[in-house]
Amino acid sequence: MKKMTSMGLKYENGRLLVLDQARLPHEEIWIECKTTAQMVGLIQRLAIRGAPLIGVGAALALGQAAESAQAQGGGSMDTLWSAARELRAARPTAVNLMWAMDRMILNRDPKTVSFETLAREAEAIFEEDVQLSENMSNRGAEFIQDGDAVLTHCNTGGLATAGIGTALGAIRRAFEQGKKIHVYVDETRPLLQGARLTAWELKKLGIPYTLICDNMAAFLMAQGKVKKIFVGSDRVARNGDFANKIGTYSLAVVANYHKVPFYVVAPVTTLDLDCPTGAQIPVEERAPQEVRNDKSPADSPVWNPSFDVTPRHLITGIVLDDRMM
Amino acid sequence: MKKMTSMGLKYENGRLLVLDQARLPHEEIWIECKTTAQMVGLIQRLAIRGAPLIGVGAALALGQAAESAQAQGGGSMDTLWSAARELRAARPTAVNLMWAMDRMILNRDPKTVSFETLAREAEAIFEEDVQLSENMSNRGAEFIQDGDAVLTHCNTGGLATAGIGTALGAIRRAFEQGKKIHVYVDETRPLLQGARLTAWELKKLGIPYTLICDNMAAFLMAQGKVKKIFVGSDRVARNGDFANKIGTYSLAVVANYHKVPFYVVAPVTTLDLDCPTGAQIPVEERAPQEVRNDKSPADSPVWNPSFDVTPRHLITGIVLDDRMM
Repeated sequence: MKKMTSMGLKYENGRLLVLDQARLPHEEIWIECKTTAQMVGLIQRLAIRGAPLIGVGAALALGQAAESAQAQGGGSMDTLWSAARELRAARPTAVNLMWAMDRMILNRDPKTVSFETLAREAEAIFEEDVQLSENMSNRGAEFIQDGDAVLTHCNTGGLATAGIGTALGAIRRAFEQGKKIHVYVDETRPLLQGARLTAWELKKLGIPYTLICDNMAAFLMAQGKVKKIFVGSDRVARNGDFANKIGTYSLAVVANYHKVPFYVVAPVTTLDLDCPTGAQIPVEERAPQEVRNDKSPADSPVWNPSFDVTPRHLITGIVLDDRMM
Repeated sequence: MKKMTSMGLKYENGRLLVLDQARLPHEEIWIECKTTAQMVGLIQRLAIRGAPLIGVGAALALGQAAESAQAQGGGSMDTLWSAARELRAARPTAVNLMWAMDRMILNRDPKTVSFETLAREAEAIFEEDVQLSENMSNRGAEFIQDGDAVLTHCNTGGLATAGIGTALGAIRRAFEQGKKIHVYVDETRPLLQGARLTAWELKKLGIPYTLICDNMAAFLMAQGKVKKIFVGSDRVARNGDFANKIGTYSLAVVANYHKVPFYVVAPVTTLDLDCPTGAQIPVEERAPQEVRNDKSPADSPVWNPSFDVTPRHLITGIVLDDRMM
């Protein structure tokens, strides 16, 4: 495959490299991913995360495995089918991962799949994700006015996609257009993707921001300090209900109460037309230790859903590529 | 002063002891508090916290200082007046602290204040707080039915008062009455009083609970899993608006949307009749590091209000002592 570079994923000289997002912002460590099994592990421990990026990462891992099989003079195509099934099942909520594996191999007529086509599809998925980010960001930025304070949740920037991002991409594009904006960043418990990753990106970009705890957003809105809310999504159902990082639903209820416009920005690869409503989206539950975090009694019972589901009627609009939903 | 004992504060053999709540639940360390200046520091760094308990703690520190002055053959009463003013200003939001200092000394005719009266008033404030906890808990428990799942925020139990608590006192009393209940505990960012202190108390009491992140409460309510919400308060204005730990307002908006009954439980000493509405309640802002917590970039700008203000119309009722508001 050709050279590909994004903020959190690189392919160069035959090596697939993943920036370990679990260790950001204090350590910037690139891990070489040599097998599809290793990619499954990196996805599961959130070294690579963000709905679009895990789809792209899985695609590159499978593309690399195909090239490697080809270089070794063939090898079993069955191995790649089973690797695709394992990658597809690495995490259950974000549909982009499933979409990428289905597109590359699982939904295809086996007769049309070759090592070569897998490598080319992986490249295409990477490039298309970059272009989708551009389109979404341009469209989303139209909803941000000069002087706006924008609140965001989790991380949806360059670390979450192959391109400039989804919700945070739109915010960045508005800033690049010269609009004076301020970003309020939800820290996003339990894994603090806002405090760790979004703050890190905004700092690098020089975009002014303020970090808050998730439970402060409502009080900020009550004071009229939030003009727009932008979030990403891990899966959009056919009726516009959507899953996103836990805390998004709470934010949508509170934004609705305060009449703050609320936009979801997600690539079309996040749209799951086979899923009629939010009720059918599976929500991943993760380990109690992510919440306990050595602060609570060690055996505290915990409920730790990684996502929640927000009904379409609570929000203003969904930016999908350059189209809206 | 006579011997007094609560979960987080003790006076015995002339020694005033404070359980360092900043180190709970992993370390249970009692600190001897020898001066009123030391008590100011313990209050400010949250070694002693909880609106009712900081009032009681300040009262005992001043009572101890009065007894000590008396034992040394009478020192300057002026010193005690200025100590009372410093204690009163240690934290700005919870009115119980101000109420206790005003009652003991600052609102009195100097001619009626003696070392002896200060010691007796401190004892009275402790005892009354125990009784207020009993009354509130009994009244609050009437709103909890057998089989209820109750959600609470921050810590409002034995660690927050001289008695069994306010909101958590009501929950405990319902459990003691044999009602089968389950408690959902908001971890309460940034300082995790729910994860650290409420979980610790519930574990000791054997009351079944589940710890969640603050941003999960709305999704839990959407699933119909929360039947009642109980929280405490740091100041109740004359019109029923109230300040409480940051996150309470968010919870009230979300509970209102889901039609989940929401009760505030607070002693009458929390009622500030000089404060017409919530808009006049001063909200303490604390250090950025409490939010950054070594997870975000070290220089991240932060907004860290320690409390928020909830309008009366969003909630169901306020249990004040055995009366309602």
